[in-house]
Amino acid sequence: MKTSSIREAYNSVRKYSELICAPLETEDYVPQPVPFVSPPKWHLAHSTWFFETFILKNFLPNYQVYDPDFNYLFNSYYNNVGERTLRTDRGNVTRPTTKAVYAYRQHVDRCMDELLEKLDDPQALTLVELGLHHEQQHQELLVTDIKYILGHNPLFPVYKSGHNLVDSTNTESGFLKIQEGVYDVGFASDGFCFDNELGAHKVYLHEFEISKALVTNEEYLEFMEAGGYQDFNLWLDEGWSWVNEHAVNSPMYWHKINGVWHYYTLDGLQKVNPNAMLSHISFFEASAFAQWKQMRLPTEFEWEIAAVNLDWGKRWEWTNSAYLPYPGFTKAPGAVGEYNGKFMINQMILRGASVGTSPGHSRKTYRNFFHARERWQFTGIRLAK
Amino acid sequence: MKTSSIREAYNSVRKYSELICAPLETEDYVPQPVPFVSPPKWHLAHSTWFFETFILKNFLPNYQVYDPDFNYLFNSYYNNVGERTLRTDRGNVTRPTTKAVYAYRQHVDRCMDELLEKLDDPQALTLVELGLHHEQQHQELLVTDIKYILGHNPLFPVYKSGHNLVDSTNTESGFLKIQEGVYDVGFASDGFCFDNELGAHKVYLHEFEISKALVTNEEYLEFMEAGGYQDFNLWLDEGWSWVNEHAVNSPMYWHKINGVWHYYTLDGLQKVNPNAMLSHISFFEASAFAQWKQMRLPTEFEWEIAAVNLDWGKRWEWTNSAYLPYPGFTKAPGAVGEYNGKFMINQMILRGASVGTSPGHSRKTYRNFFHARERWQFTGIRLAK
Amino acid sequence: MKTSSIREAYNSVRKYSELICAPLETEDYVPQPVPFVSPPKWHLAHSTWFFETFILKNFLPNYQVYDPDFNYLFNSYYNNVGERTLRTDRGNVTRPTTKAVYAYRQHVDRCMDELLEKLDDPQALTLVELGLHHEQQHQELLVTDIKYILGHNPLFPVYKSGHNLVDSTNTESGFLKIQEGVYDVGFASDGFCFDNELGAHKVYLHEFEISKALVTNEEYLEFMEAGGYQDFNLWLDEGWSWVNEHAVNSPMYWHKINGVWHYYTLDGLQKVNPNAMLSHISFFEASAFAQWKQMRLPTEFEWEIAAVNLDWGKRWEWTNSAYLPYPGFTKAPGAVGEYNGKFMINQMILRGASVGTSPGHSRKTYRNFFHARERWQFTGIRLAK
Amino acid sequence: MKTSSIREAYNSVRKYSELICAPLETEDYVPQPVPFVSPPKWHLAHSTWFFETFILKNFLPNYQVYDPDFNYLFNSYYNNVGERTLRTDRGNVTRPTTKAVYAYRQHVDRCMDELLEKLDDPQALTLVELGLHHEQQHQELLVTDIKYILGHNPLFPVYKSGHNLVDSTNTESGFLKIQEGVYDVGFASDGFCFDNELGAHKVYLHEFEISKALVTNEEYLEFMEAGGYQDFNLWLDEGWSWVNEHAVNSPMYWHKINGVWHYYTLDGLQKVNPNAMLSHISFFEASAFAQWKQMRLPTEFEWEIAAVNLDWGKRWEWTNSAYLPYPGFTKAPGAVGEYNGKFMINQMILRGASVGTSPGHSRKTYRNFFHARERWQFTGIRLAK
Repeated sequence: MKTSSIREAYNSVRKYSELICAPLETEDYVPQPVPFVSPPKWHLAHSTWFFETFILKNFLPNYQVYDPDFNYLFNSYYNNVGERTLRTDRGNVTRPTTKAVYAYRQHVDRCMDELLEKLDDPQALTLVELGLHHEQQHQELLVTDIKYILGHNPLFPVYKSGHNLVDSTNTESGFLKIQEGVYDVGFASDGFCFDNELGAHKVYLHEFEISKALVTNEEYLEFMEAGGYQDFNLWLDEGWSWVNEHAVNSPMYWHKINGVWHYYTLDGLQKVNPNAMLSHISFFEASAFAQWKQMRLPTEFEWEIAAVNLDWGKRWEWTNSAYLPYPGFTKAPGAVGEYNGKFMINQMILRGASVGTSPGHSRKTYRNFFHARERWQFTGIRLAK
Repeated sequence: MKTSSIREAYNSVRKYSELICAPLETEDYVPQPVPFVSPPKWHLAHSTWFFETFILKNFLPNYQVYDPDFNYLFNSYYNNVGERTLRTDRGNVTRPTTKAVYAYRQHVDRCMDELLEKLDDPQALTLVELGLHHEQQHQELLVTDIKYILGHNPLFPVYKSGHNLVDSTNTESGFLKIQEGVYDVGFASDGFCFDNELGAHKVYLHEFEISKALVTNEEYLEFMEAGGYQDFNLWLDEGWSWVNEHAVNSPMYWHKINGVWHYYTLDGLQKVNPNAMLSHISFFEASAFAQWKQMRLPTEFEWEIAAVNLDWGKRWEWTNSAYLPYPGFTKAPGAVGEYNGKFMINQMILRGASVGTSPGHSRKTYRNFFHARERWQFTGIRLAK
Repeated sequence: MKTSSIREAYNSVRKYSELICAPLETEDYVPQPVPFVSPPKWHLAHSTWFFETFILKNFLPNYQVYDPDFNYLFNSYYNNVGERTLRTDRGNVTRPTTKAVYAYRQHVDRCMDELLEKLDDPQALTLVELGLHHEQQHQELLVTDIKYILGHNPLFPVYKSGHNLVDSTNTESGFLKIQEGVYDVGFASDGFCFDNELGAHKVYLHEFEISKALVTNEEYLEFMEAGGYQDFNLWLDEGWSWVNEHAVNSPMYWHKINGVWHYYTLDGLQKVNPNAMLSHISFFEASAFAQWKQMRLPTEFEWEIAAVNLDWGKRWEWTNSAYLPYPGFTKAPGAVGEYNGKFMINQMILRGASVGTSPGHSRKTYRNFFHARERWQFTGIRLAK
Repeated sequence: MKTSSIREAYNSVRKYSELICAPLETEDYVPQPVPFVSPPKWHLAHSTWFFETFILKNFLPNYQVYDPDFNYLFNSYYNNVGERTLRTDRGNVTRPTTKAVYAYRQHVDRCMDELLEKLDDPQALTLVELGLHHEQQHQELLVTDIKYILGHNPLFPVYKSGHNLVDSTNTESGFLKIQEGVYDVGFASDGFCFDNELGAHKVYLHEFEISKALVTNEEYLEFMEAGGYQDFNLWLDEGWSWVNEHAVNSPMYWHKINGVWHYYTLDGLQKVNPNAMLSHISFFEASAFAQWKQMRLPTEFEWEIAAVNLDWGKRWEWTNSAYLPYPGFTKAPGAVGEYNGKFMINQMILRGASVGTSPGHSRKTYRNFFHARERWQFTGIRLAK
């Protein structure tokens, strides 16, 4: 990336995070209701900390650390960068205040602007680019974490009118057939990608068909009404335990009120739209639904090969592939190497992008990953057979 | 209480709660770091809800409930008043905002003022008085919960300069001897008391001696340095488990920094003052310390009989009495009856009052109670033999 | 006790433990289904270890320890006697086998017989007496633990025909009235008692009435049918949590089969006998039942004073007294001092004796104690008012 | 399989289970020290229940169920065959006794012999074959569960002299290179295989090298001494949590005694043999070790293609493949379909066979699978690069 364009990109990405938070009340920035949901205040500070720690401290001459305590408070999981607060304790840290976090952002942005004005060190530019993609990842988490915080408030407050992100509908139908053969997968273009997409390689695919449409709420309601949540034969063993331990009987955010299914959206509580794409389901639910349909989920490589002919991008689509390294994958040394590789166990791949994904942050080789039980992201189902 | 004085009392008590919260940032009102610590926002709303639910709804003609959701959100443990949010979830409820809670207080205060102007229904007056004492109890919790929230922040923020509540020192020394005999205990005066103090009755006390001074930090440091936390012979069995599970090796809020013991105070982190009264210890620690001194804790009745000749009131003093009903104790019917009686199991009595107790909220028959492991209150030790 | 009678007592008590185990299969000696139930094999070994550790090692010249590993395996909670296996792990220790444990008993019995032949050291005699009472305590635990193991087997196996210990019925009815005044309580006779009974002292009792009969199954069924388990107003707060967490809706061992209440007895599964004394209820249930009857449980001192005029001894009777030290209580130094004092927190006193109590092991000053939730002992209810 | 040979196979497999248990004491048959280890008694009964439930009940005319309770007690995880005891409760079920379980085996064996004498129904024959392979799987579990039970006894009892299963050494060294290309994998021969091996298909492999030898104890000790368990950069994130939560610092069964590493073997406690193949390590440890060696674990398909030129069979070898379905995998309807498919989430594939694998129960397409943290099987490491 060129210096001029990266400076623009920097400003645009950084502003977008604050735009997402604009409708919040100060109180909304604070809590961490479950360990996997971070306080919005923390996201804003942590993405800033990334630029300060990996770029300003190393590349801006005479840079003075803004506040030494922030390294302790806003490190996420980088063991190489010193002690960090317990991930489960973030919601109890009321100071620095939200206002102080915004001041921290401004300070770092000013210094970054000074640095970017004349930056041509390729290593630094690469890190800035990584920092921006990192912040975009946190932007999607900001959206889904805000939804979690507001959506679990018994008052179901509106985030911002007109922000209903669930009403996407399919534009196509039927199945796409892909021929058997050897295919190339993985990232092999110019431009940015994460390290887990590298190692472009060949895979052998057997003939398969993949749906052009995502599963709708209406289809999923049929599954529910057919007793899908009660029939253990449809479920993976761990999925069946999950259903029973948590008494799951619908997607996340769904509530049956006077016999009618509603769901919480960023526009508040609404009646479930039968034509909209299903969202907020776990891999376990995706797998059980596919079993009920006597189909299956695609693998990540089937998805990647088919993607060029699919309309994708409203939901993260669960695949039946585990998150594992590509041939030749190696971790970068030091803290940046902790980015992806160490999570390659017990998580499933999602492909595509969602209504919560930041502009410019999607590509068909992108490998998103979550645990099979998680469903606070905008997750959906595309069937294969 | 007379109408005029209760109106004054109402205003004064209600203002005191807001005074306690004045130094807080908005963020500080939100979290519930552990189940027993409630968000300041919640305390302010809950004590208001008490007046609305038990008084305005019943005694102010045509009173309209301010917000029906508030009953759900701000009920604490009154099963008789409908469903309540899980006690462990209070820290995730960001709406209503702090500002909205203050508006709720103003609304209820205006309506109470209207009601109190001419109130002479004795049942209502009794309930108002109960509501004020209830709010005073929450005021002490506000102080200790704020201390917990700020004191567990890695930055150790100052609550308010000049509010160091730990530096109290003893004014007397030596032991007071009380003769064997039959004594009267329990509340038998005019004025207000809680139902658990009623049932004034006789007890037989054997001769005993009770210390005129509370244990100081210096004395407790001797216990620590003598290996008190490592010697199982000093501890109750459950206390020994507690020490080991939580790796306890000092009172709450103590931190050893470069070999010197500090503690968090509402004035920030300070060196431990050896002459100050010890604070923030559990019953388990109080009991082990007494065992080490080859003495014991007094019973609640020994304390009550001795109190008239003691200087008490800077620390809640652990007694060796369990929280159990007095002869003839009966629960009031309905929600108000849930106030005390249902907690009469597995808790220990504390007598006295502390630097966090609201003005006018202490008397020698007052029975405070907490679980043996709890120590976020201003708890101290008075020895007997 | 004289040497001749203690030798007889020793033989008789030791044989009684083996008599209790006679109907068991080898497999029944092994498991520990919950932490508070110990394997029968462990009880047999632990009570033997007590004699070896505290008596043979100290008083039999040239005594060689039978197996050094046994100290590690069969110590219960004596921190002073070295490391012990985790209390929760006892059920996994398959070796030494049951047969080897019986061999260990024989060895220790032979050595004890040799010692007792001419023992006149008063300290040793005191310890032997303590050891026998200790073994008798484990005999009652043997009975209740065996009942737990067999009673939680889906096949409900019979322990021994004719051993139904639940069918006791009342011989008296009505209430006994006791006058207000100062009374003497605690152990003040000759003979054996535990240290927690010492410190005979005076108490002041207000007038009260106490039932001559224990609560029957029929009376308890009325409580159940009146919705006692569903009415939170009857329960202590911790009791209500216990009921809901464990979905409790009847005493332990009760099963509703085709609409008829049955219970597991040592004779196998039987229909509930309405006239028999209620058994296997927690303090929480006892307290809720008393509340429903608009009465209360007696205190331990009320019980002790009334006992001389009561027919007691089929059920351990929950009192409303917490397990706390008597005036002047002190712990013996060393391991024997760990016997009682360290448990004086968060437990409730039971008075009387039960059908599972060994012959000669009851007196009216005996202070039994268990946690409020426990109910695998033969516990019952006597009301007071 | 022909009738004559299946009858022989039946007798031989069934006897082998009893041979494994021959050295046990009755007590050893009972406990379930952790949920994943079942009581030997349970294995003997469950594998018998399989034949009774799926074969005798369906194919032997007029067969009377031996004991209806056994269906309840000895079902493992087949939801289709009715209620089952909680997997975590098996160790508390002392009845039926071990003797009664052997009687049950004899009864079923007699009936199976009668049936097999003239059985020619192909569906039944297939089920018998499945039952035998099922019993062989339980035979390996019997060996590893017995090792767990005895190996966690503080006395480290010997299972059977001469049964040290850990001393296997490598016969080859160096690396085998495999060329890039399309390969056939999965089961495509005659004879028995499990459903998860079916769906023979093509995969594309890139060039790789695979070690001819398994990692030895000596090599692993180097990793330990180099601080492998302390360097978070080597570990998967979940692996690092696992190491810290359980304070793991060596393979399972290793004990440092007076500075010398020992391990528990079926021959009792022995010094670690440096030349023997490493055993009893989790996937997390295998992955960290490979990272330390700057190599990796092979995928299951790399392993399968290389296997024809490898000496394998002393350890189950962790691969870096997740347990997922092959193309075209479908679950059989009903209970038999619960055999494999429902476990295809969050488990890793192991290939090969071990010293605990029953004779005749291994093939190069066999897909064994366990959770990444488990290590009570005879697991080892083969490196790739």
